[in-house]
Amino acid sequence: MNQSNYCFTCSICEFSTSPSSEIIICKKCKSPLDVKYASLDKSKTVVNSIDIPLPITSEDLISLGEGNTPTISLNNLSNNLDVRLSTKLEYFNPTGSFKDRGTSIMISCLKKAGIKEISEDSSGNAGASISAYASKAKIKSHIFAPSSAPNAKINQIKVYGAKTYLISGSRDNATKEAEIFSKTHGITYASHNLSPYFIEGTKIFAYEIFRDLYNSQDFPEHIVIPTGNGSLFLGAVKSFLELYSSNKINLIPKIHVVQTESIQPIYALFNTSHWSPSNQSKTIAGGIAVSSPPRVNQIVKALHENNGSCVIVSEKEIIEWQLHLANQEGLYIEPTSAAAFAGISKLMESKIIKKGASVLIPSTGFGLKDISPI
Amino acid sequence: MNQSNYCFTCSICEFSTSPSSEIIICKKCKSPLDVKYASLDKSKTVVNSIDIPLPITSEDLISLGEGNTPTISLNNLSNNLDVRLSTKLEYFNPTGSFKDRGTSIMISCLKKAGIKEISEDSSGNAGASISAYASKAKIKSHIFAPSSAPNAKINQIKVYGAKTYLISGSRDNATKEAEIFSKTHGITYASHNLSPYFIEGTKIFAYEIFRDLYNSQDFPEHIVIPTGNGSLFLGAVKSFLELYSSNKINLIPKIHVVQTESIQPIYALFNTSHWSPSNQSKTIAGGIAVSSPPRVNQIVKALHENNGSCVIVSEKEIIEWQLHLANQEGLYIEPTSAAAFAGISKLMESKIIKKGASVLIPSTGFGLKDISPI
Repeated sequence: MNQSNYCFTCSICEFSTSPSSEIIICKKCKSPLDVKYASLDKSKTVVNSIDIPLPITSEDLISLGEGNTPTISLNNLSNNLDVRLSTKLEYFNPTGSFKDRGTSIMISCLKKAGIKEISEDSSGNAGASISAYASKAKIKSHIFAPSSAPNAKINQIKVYGAKTYLISGSRDNATKEAEIFSKTHGITYASHNLSPYFIEGTKIFAYEIFRDLYNSQDFPEHIVIPTGNGSLFLGAVKSFLELYSSNKINLIPKIHVVQTESIQPIYALFNTSHWSPSNQSKTIAGGIAVSSPPRVNQIVKALHENNGSCVIVSEKEIIEWQLHLANQEGLYIEPTSAAAFAGISKLMESKIIKKGASVLIPSTGFGLKDISPI
Repeated sequence: MNQSNYCFTCSICEFSTSPSSEIIICKKCKSPLDVKYASLDKSKTVVNSIDIPLPITSEDLISLGEGNTPTISLNNLSNNLDVRLSTKLEYFNPTGSFKDRGTSIMISCLKKAGIKEISEDSSGNAGASISAYASKAKIKSHIFAPSSAPNAKINQIKVYGAKTYLISGSRDNATKEAEIFSKTHGITYASHNLSPYFIEGTKIFAYEIFRDLYNSQDFPEHIVIPTGNGSLFLGAVKSFLELYSSNKINLIPKIHVVQTESIQPIYALFNTSHWSPSNQSKTIAGGIAVSSPPRVNQIVKALHENNGSCVIVSEKEIIEWQLHLANQEGLYIEPTSAAAFAGISKLMESKIIKKGASVLIPSTGFGLKDISPI
């Protein structure tokens, strides 16, 4: 397909514009933008044997082998919890996290648009992913990461070839520095949190769940996602709505969000409780340590519209669940991913997830990404 | 299938015996044993949608989602080298290395045989893999690793729940301690280097190459494997011979072995040059740092019988290739895996691989497994 088949629309207001690599927020209300297709049926690209509306053709896709991740049953934990629990192993991706799905589509679109140099900010996983795909695409990349990010993640960003800038202070400082750098040097700001293309890539996660499980008893009633900036959550919601609009499915899983007690902007907005970035404390779940997610309004709107919930978990619960998964299921995931598993008990306590329900949780990042908590 | 469908045969002499978890070397000549099926056609288990002769049924398979790894073209490096280079991403496995293929079958067979406690020695990757699958199977595991193994690997062994013993001195000391521990405590010695079951699992790597590529121009003329104990190499050779015997294929890729200048027992035996474990020096390719591989005679025999070659590479070349892959292809693999890529130039210099040839290299382990060299 070419660019005339889709436009960028505001995630909150009615603003709409032709797509451009340089436009990533709404000119009217400053909210993030989304890709909107002129026709879902006429905008299909075959990825991993699935027809998916995407802003890029198969020929122009820059791939490192992302996606097609396996889903496995977690029988030992299922017996203990009295739910049918499975996980989709999203760390089976080229750089070890689900971010590669979004990066593949974003970098492909930027390459197609002739972009030769980009900047980005990341707590680690997205930075490594963008550094890798940019090298494959021969795009020069500048990655701004918090100096507090785990060594393994910082080394990984560097090894793929990105020029890497370590920024002291909070995660948000890295964002500010990346934005300033882009403006000063006239370089495209390829923010994975803002780029409308990124979410088009994370959609593929849910399309694979549809392909693999829709006609089986394991199709999840609930999906529980660890959420900071929300790219996997928003991609999953968009996919199921597209599939529903195209009459491919007639029921949509409830998609829930897990945050930490330490950093809970989505939880607070969803529950109209009070929380501000000045209340934040340190968390081992670095991948969701985002105190001001740019898409927070869009995430909460999507939760309300699709019967999702949001719960928060403690640091202690995250560590306990990381060990439960390793000891009982032979699955070593990073603390950010473990947070989602810790959220199940909360969702069961509040009867949002009932006994016997089918629940799928993505294992978003590999434990080796951050070995400090163990 | 049940155990009457296969026996254990010696990899070197004519000895044959009924399968048992407690027999792992030939009673006559002390060589390692292999699984031999009464009938290849009558011994099929469906794994990842392929019929494969295996010593376990699908129902009894303990899986963490291993296998079905993607193969990707390395176009940037192909252009530089003037070959058609691809890689099968074996680090897309549950514990981040190809070892999970062998472990899945070995642990499944031990579980089926009623084994409740095992010991094993490993430089790191196999130890992590066995720790993970043993926890899933509720088998207690004792892993002996060299104290020089990277922290990330040692932590990973521990996190899955194995009791972990760090042994000073060479890699071989860990083997000796594991053997003594097993004998002293009457615990099954589940050596991934000796167990005939382990190679049955690594076979699946080559069966997937057959499934995915046999009818395409990308079916490799050459496969190049970093080799220490040789489980992936021997599994691949066995698979292609089975497929050839069953008339599924009429040509077999040439399978080559790469070792390091530092530790080269297979290279020395293959080329009848002089090398002894006392000549060994330190190598960053920890996964193939095996000075006395128990299957060395079997590996060299298989190389000679199937037109394979063996080359050695330097530490400098390994580091250079690890960076080439990351910078040019967005692929971050551990030094052990990079050694195989470093071997291509050697195989091209000696005209074993000709310009334009199709070459596949497994990316056996993720770069995050060992971040020290970068």
